[in-house]
Amino acid sequence: MPDRSLTFIIGGARSGKSAHAETLATALPPPWAYIATAEAYDDEMRERIAQHRSRRGEGWATIDAPLDLVGALELLPDNQPVLVDCLTLWLTNHMLSDHDLEAECRRLADVLSRPRGPWFVVSNEVGQGIVPDNALARRFRDAAGRLNQQVAAIADTVLLMVAGLPLKVK
Amino acid sequence: MPDRSLTFIIGGARSGKSAHAETLATALPPPWAYIATAEAYDDEMRERIAQHRSRRGEGWATIDAPLDLVGALELLPDNQPVLVDCLTLWLTNHMLSDHDLEAECRRLADVLSRPRGPWFVVSNEVGQGIVPDNALARRFRDAAGRLNQQVAAIADTVLLMVAGLPLKVK
Amino acid sequence: MPDRSLTFIIGGARSGKSAHAETLATALPPPWAYIATAEAYDDEMRERIAQHRSRRGEGWATIDAPLDLVGALELLPDNQPVLVDCLTLWLTNHMLSDHDLEAECRRLADVLSRPRGPWFVVSNEVGQGIVPDNALARRFRDAAGRLNQQVAAIADTVLLMVAGLPLKVK
Repeated sequence: MPDRSLTFIIGGARSGKSAHAETLATALPPPWAYIATAEAYDDEMRERIAQHRSRRGEGWATIDAPLDLVGALELLPDNQPVLVDCLTLWLTNHMLSDHDLEAECRRLADVLSRPRGPWFVVSNEVGQGIVPDNALARRFRDAAGRLNQQVAAIADTVLLMVAGLPLKVK
Repeated sequence: MPDRSLTFIIGGARSGKSAHAETLATALPPPWAYIATAEAYDDEMRERIAQHRSRRGEGWATIDAPLDLVGALELLPDNQPVLVDCLTLWLTNHMLSDHDLEAECRRLADVLSRPRGPWFVVSNEVGQGIVPDNALARRFRDAAGRLNQQVAAIADTVLLMVAGLPLKVK
Repeated sequence: MPDRSLTFIIGGARSGKSAHAETLATALPPPWAYIATAEAYDDEMRERIAQHRSRRGEGWATIDAPLDLVGALELLPDNQPVLVDCLTLWLTNHMLSDHDLEAECRRLADVLSRPRGPWFVVSNEVGQGIVPDNALARRFRDAAGRLNQQVAAIADTVLLMVAGLPLKVK
């Protein structure tokens, strides 16, 4: 029976989300698809992207989807291990583009609710600090929290990363 | 035997704390009391309060207690499902009123240690980000963390919300 | 058989990390060593240090090691309960001194991978808030997250503190 399941990996910055998702995906037979949502706005981001890429190594096909994540997922063949890294940057890109976040999140949740292979989706927990000073950050935090809830609700497995270790939530 | 228990629901912003607390409370027979500690300082807050209120729907009696949460709890009849939403805003209100936070928290913990029905109390985790720049935010973070510890210590059940899902801590 | 194990206790600000670590250490026979990494830069810090010290009480030998934590650990006798409080401040001190963080963390992880008694190490989760505005805070958050992963990987037990309660991660 083909494995059609959604695994949602959430955690703070540098909690080992991507590395753990890669470990889970590469335990399955290649080829693996890596859908990257990051955009290299500045040197800091470029370096981070390069680090992730060099860690992944061979066997990965990388697809850039800073905005059209839904389109990228729809084009994937069936039964392929897929890593989406990450929802938080995808949401940031849509917010900076002034798109309708609610509509975008609904479309994404709809596609993720019907995984066509073992899909691994990474996202950030951003709501456990002090209320941010500026309204944009608060709006982003709200949207990110709502999206995380939507995806966790439809996921088969939800893991909270703590210092590189997975804590099973669902 | 009457259910006299304290359930403490903690989590980040938009982690689904209130919704989960409502689900737990409304699994019990009505009428349900909703003790709201939010004050509508601005439009953002007014909108958030309205959203929560419209989601709750029928069967709830709402009591506003931005400061006198202890008084509101003492007036409640026995054996009633109660949702307190949330401790973080109550603490904020006392801090802005320049009250003695330690004394207020002690009084509150004292009342919560003797629940007279199935009581559900919601609070925010605010200590998992970078140390805030300003001293007031640090003071608030410390007071909120201490209050959360006090309440968790006396609670029968403690749930950490992660992306809308409860993780049992106690 | 002597207890040579590493227990890693991670959590947000005011989540009860230090108090829980003290409880675990003092359940073992004294003398207990307390390795403090805090430096009293200002009154707020002095007060916090004094609070921790007064709570600990008798039976503790305090060793100050704001930078040379590796040296302090190497000088310890075998089979002694040790509490290191905390890695986050130690990392801050090295960052403010403009040291090579990667090299320092590697040296520390090396010593911690061979505990010579029941060692308890406390650290902060700082990555679950909104991305900080300033580059220094982001750099610190990354370094802290990486260090937490390194230590969690070699620890025998990892506990996440939530409102004063330990959640077993490993």
